[in-house]
Amino acid sequence: MKKIELDETREFNPLGMKSIVLHDSEHFKILNFNLVKGALFPIHSHKLDGQLSILVIEGEGEFLADDDVVLPAKTGSMLVSDISEPHGVRAISDMRIVVTIAPPI
Amino acid sequence: MKKIELDETREFNPLGMKSIVLHDSEHFKILNFNLVKGALFPIHSHKLDGQLSILVIEGEGEFLADDDVVLPAKTGSMLVSDISEPHGVRAISDMRIVVTIAPPI
Repeated sequence: MKKIELDETREFNPLGMKSIVLHDSEHFKILNFNLVKGALFPIHSHKLDGQLSILVIEGEGEFLADDDVVLPAKTGSMLVSDISEPHGVRAISDMRIVVTIAPPI
Repeated sequence: MKKIELDETREFNPLGMKSIVLHDSEHFKILNFNLVKGALFPIHSHKLDGQLSILVIEGEGEFLADDDVVLPAKTGSMLVSDISEPHGVRAISDMRIVVTIAPPI
């Protein structure tokens, strides 16, 4: 059992995205990505079984998917996707997300 | 792929805890629990392999563990625990948490 404080990982990289691994086990991996305004987490996918969730904990932006699909995202928005489905994020303001990947990759 | 808006599940039950399943798959289960001020999510555990995360998305309270351990919890606090470890939550204010369980139970 461990406690993590997300206000302690509120660090931004002016060049784009800061990524922090919060937890990694055989069951799931949890990361915090902090994107500066305008930063892009490019659309990607992996040919693996599993799913991920992306929860916006601060700021606003867009979830990106295949075929130019763009979904508005703000604090409290969550995307759930197969790992094999193309997914990405664009930050409209400084933006923080928590990503949970199960099983971990 | 699906998008969930947590501001759409911001419902409280004056008698205690409101629980909403946000996602359930073979990979993980994601729930939103909304606790009114003073509500208790009693300490419990399951003799199963797997882990869970509890992320506070609003309000403040306490994470509860075995042996009377009490950990302060506020928006942005996350507890990661084995499913088999005793864990619970007490709400000091109205409080919202997102719980991710992998594999799902």
